[in-house]
Amino acid sequence: MAQQGAPARPRAKEALMFPASSRAFIDPYLPTAEGNREDGVGGTDRPFVTLTYAQSLDSKLALAPGAQTALSGPETKAMTHYLRSRHDAILVGAGTAMADDPALNCRLAGVGLDGQPRPVVVDARARWSPGRWPDGVAACMALAFHGTGKGPWILTSKDPTDLDPEWVRCAERCSGAYITVPATDGEMDWQAILAELGRRGVDSVMVEGGAKVINALLQEKNLHLVDAVIVTIAPVWLGDAGVNVSPPALRSGDGSLRAATSLAEVRWQQFGQDVVMCGKIKR
Amino acid sequence: MAQQGAPARPRAKEALMFPASSRAFIDPYLPTAEGNREDGVGGTDRPFVTLTYAQSLDSKLALAPGAQTALSGPETKAMTHYLRSRHDAILVGAGTAMADDPALNCRLAGVGLDGQPRPVVVDARARWSPGRWPDGVAACMALAFHGTGKGPWILTSKDPTDLDPEWVRCAERCSGAYITVPATDGEMDWQAILAELGRRGVDSVMVEGGAKVINALLQEKNLHLVDAVIVTIAPVWLGDAGVNVSPPALRSGDGSLRAATSLAEVRWQQFGQDVVMCGKIKR
Repeated sequence: MAQQGAPARPRAKEALMFPASSRAFIDPYLPTAEGNREDGVGGTDRPFVTLTYAQSLDSKLALAPGAQTALSGPETKAMTHYLRSRHDAILVGAGTAMADDPALNCRLAGVGLDGQPRPVVVDARARWSPGRWPDGVAACMALAFHGTGKGPWILTSKDPTDLDPEWVRCAERCSGAYITVPATDGEMDWQAILAELGRRGVDSVMVEGGAKVINALLQEKNLHLVDAVIVTIAPVWLGDAGVNVSPPALRSGDGSLRAATSLAEVRWQQFGQDVVMCGKIKR
Repeated sequence: MAQQGAPARPRAKEALMFPASSRAFIDPYLPTAEGNREDGVGGTDRPFVTLTYAQSLDSKLALAPGAQTALSGPETKAMTHYLRSRHDAILVGAGTAMADDPALNCRLAGVGLDGQPRPVVVDARARWSPGRWPDGVAACMALAFHGTGKGPWILTSKDPTDLDPEWVRCAERCSGAYITVPATDGEMDWQAILAELGRRGVDSVMVEGGAKVINALLQEKNLHLVDAVIVTIAPVWLGDAGVNVSPPALRSGDGSLRAATSLAEVRWQQFGQDVVMCGKIKR
């Protein structure tokens, strides 16, 4: 039974190591302590945005919508936790939060609460239930309550008065919050999301998925918000029922199709059986 | 004007170099002079099959069906020609032949006619027109007529009596041929295709595309026919109108989805901005 008033303490998972030689490959693409902020959105600063995810050869993140799918090997798992240690916040969409119940913390050896990233769930319609306090609460909330992670921020386009008060209390009990961000045409506005995070002191955010979030940020109108891209590719085809990353097709002025997005300063390195690609959006 | 009775001599393109250091990466996945043939199909031997293609991050071969799309850089282009020098035949589908009019020859420096691969076009319904002799003939036929490439074999499920006699003459004038291979349920049968190539002395075949051919060979029923896979990935997203590689989804006995195909003995290496993955089908 959980202690009265407190969610059960999560079982501690093993700490991960990411060797210095591998860090040297990744570091040129990561935010630095100073100079991340760009003078950007509506007079405020937006955070440095790293888009990162693991896909199959056929560009799938999962076997099917809602299906938790282990894709990458142990080497790239350690890399993910290193990346988390290097960003102020981790952002996922509500679909990923619902499918995976991710802990969204950093398990790299030696990282304390100060070094933990802030979990951010983009949840336009407030679909993701934080769970029932104290039992069955979301993994990231349990960690936050016990001081091994930060409380999640849930970004929604719902008016605060339309939110479930129990969910709001649940977030607040673990030092998280529901935050209303304006939507445009029913879609969350990524300029507004990043401006809001910037106002709250987030200098860098690692966007981990899922496909809806990634495809939205790879759209032409949002590309200027993305600073670095780090993609892990596993040598497997998940098949045509999978959850697909592919941004909307683009046309040139003459109506002919052109590539949606190209990368510059690209480096690839093998980790176990997978490959990791780092690059910057070609402006 | 073309010489009477002969197609115009194709303009010679520059010869390509593929350095020994890069060959060392690829060679473990390539067919060897002896021991390629497996005792396989109906008492005959089937050739060694290398599946190779270039894709975008979002697993597209082209911006749209029929759209010729340059994806890979100069380094991987040289690799393609090295691969062609190491196989007896190059196979493409009719859609690729129609979209790209590929020369299907090997431009590696020092490769003579003996070292040229046999172009094979899989064309179930004989849709691909070889062009009008002597003008406007398909690129691979013009090369063959002038002795810098072999004449193409067009594999079709059409009865020989249903073929356009002018097309058949065109193929034969450049030492090519139309070859009828039985179809199963209206689809070309890959066992039969490879058995036919084996009977004609082809010990190794490089399958270059397009998506329909690749997706067919990555189906569970055909996977045992594939020996090696060499995929080039360019750091670009072509977008969701593109021609997609993704094999049909597979289900386990309990109805749950599982990965369509996994690879073993995987190696990745960066070539220019692209990466090349070599692997073998996990049996």
